[in-house]
Amino acid sequence: MKCLDKKTIQDLDHRDRVRLINSISGVKSANLISTRSKEPQTNLSIISSLFHLGAEPPLFGFVIRPDSVTRDTLENLRANPRFTINHVNSDIIQQAHQTSARYEKNINEFVECGLTEEYLNNFEVPFVKESCLKFSADFIREIRIEENGTHLIIAQVIDLHLKEDILNEDYSLDITKFKSVGVSGLDTYLSLETIGRLSYAKPDKPLTWIDKNEVSK
Amino acid sequence: MKCLDKKTIQDLDHRDRVRLINSISGVKSANLISTRSKEPQTNLSIISSLFHLGAEPPLFGFVIRPDSVTRDTLENLRANPRFTINHVNSDIIQQAHQTSARYEKNINEFVECGLTEEYLNNFEVPFVKESCLKFSADFIREIRIEENGTHLIIAQVIDLHLKEDILNEDYSLDITKFKSVGVSGLDTYLSLETIGRLSYAKPDKPLTWIDKNEVSK
Repeated sequence: MKCLDKKTIQDLDHRDRVRLINSISGVKSANLISTRSKEPQTNLSIISSLFHLGAEPPLFGFVIRPDSVTRDTLENLRANPRFTINHVNSDIIQQAHQTSARYEKNINEFVECGLTEEYLNNFEVPFVKESCLKFSADFIREIRIEENGTHLIIAQVIDLHLKEDILNEDYSLDITKFKSVGVSGLDTYLSLETIGRLSYAKPDKPLTWIDKNEVSK
Repeated sequence: MKCLDKKTIQDLDHRDRVRLINSISGVKSANLISTRSKEPQTNLSIISSLFHLGAEPPLFGFVIRPDSVTRDTLENLRANPRFTINHVNSDIIQQAHQTSARYEKNINEFVECGLTEEYLNNFEVPFVKESCLKFSADFIREIRIEENGTHLIIAQVIDLHLKEDILNEDYSLDITKFKSVGVSGLDTYLSLETIGRLSYAKPDKPLTWIDKNEVSK
């Protein structure tokens, strides 16, 4: 095992530290956030920090860095709290990654990056048509992280749209059926394969595999 | 496409809603958090909500639900802010999942679940020996999420320990080299395979693949 201690990490070149620290949390989800300004101007941006916050009510969170391209996203959310989250699948990785370029504010990333706007359920902000798992959401509030000037966004799920065959009978989702991808660090995209589902863990009771994929390692 | 609208989601059985909403954020990282109480009693618990918060200083966050088995983790962090984060790989999925069982407070999950305590760099809280990417950390503060009674933990990385061959020259990490796994929903474990790295995105400049894995789909 190699050790990179606190001082070594501190002394790294800034870009090296960014690449390293972005990688240590493990695999991250890849999602496109679509927002709309007052004008209205649509903005689309890839985010990899989405996390589950609770099911009752259905809440999630994500991080916005004011120095990054997501600054337009934050400004839009403050003006119009409605937005959409759209999963990235392996057919649209390049289009999704391209949304991280620093486009001018008046540029619609849907058009520039080759993705299609789709309007569902009379929701005023577009979804990404090419995405197979997407939901509309309400921006509830932001929490400022004083330690580094980032903003933690708390939001609530409204309507969920998904490819029919990914919904299991017990309402879990099989995200491998639409070739959902993950991200490692800043720029590495990963494909996902199911190893299996494990039974609910109880003390003094052995776990059993449910739907174990025998070909996976 | 199928639509589960706000009302349909609200009207679901509680367990179904939990499974659904836990699945919609996409793939999540699988980590074991090791904490120590004042007694001292070691606690080990699987968490899937770790997210990157910033590299300057190296910060990350995660969510603790007070009604879950991680309540011991929260209590320990308040008593002793030092803890360790240990990635789950495909060799220890069952042991890691078993830590989510509701063990009594005086039970050490390392022993009960078949994982090995390892002490590194004189850090007072053990790491998981079987883990190939792990770091010590300092609990900085907690943010209470009033909407559902969860706690958002903000923490800082101290020392990083990793298998030598996963560190790339530019300080990004190849997490597929130690068979790092992801989680979908509550109980589905996923294996990861590199599709490739994409170049830094700029307006009006086509992206190029770096280290594209030609066999991946």
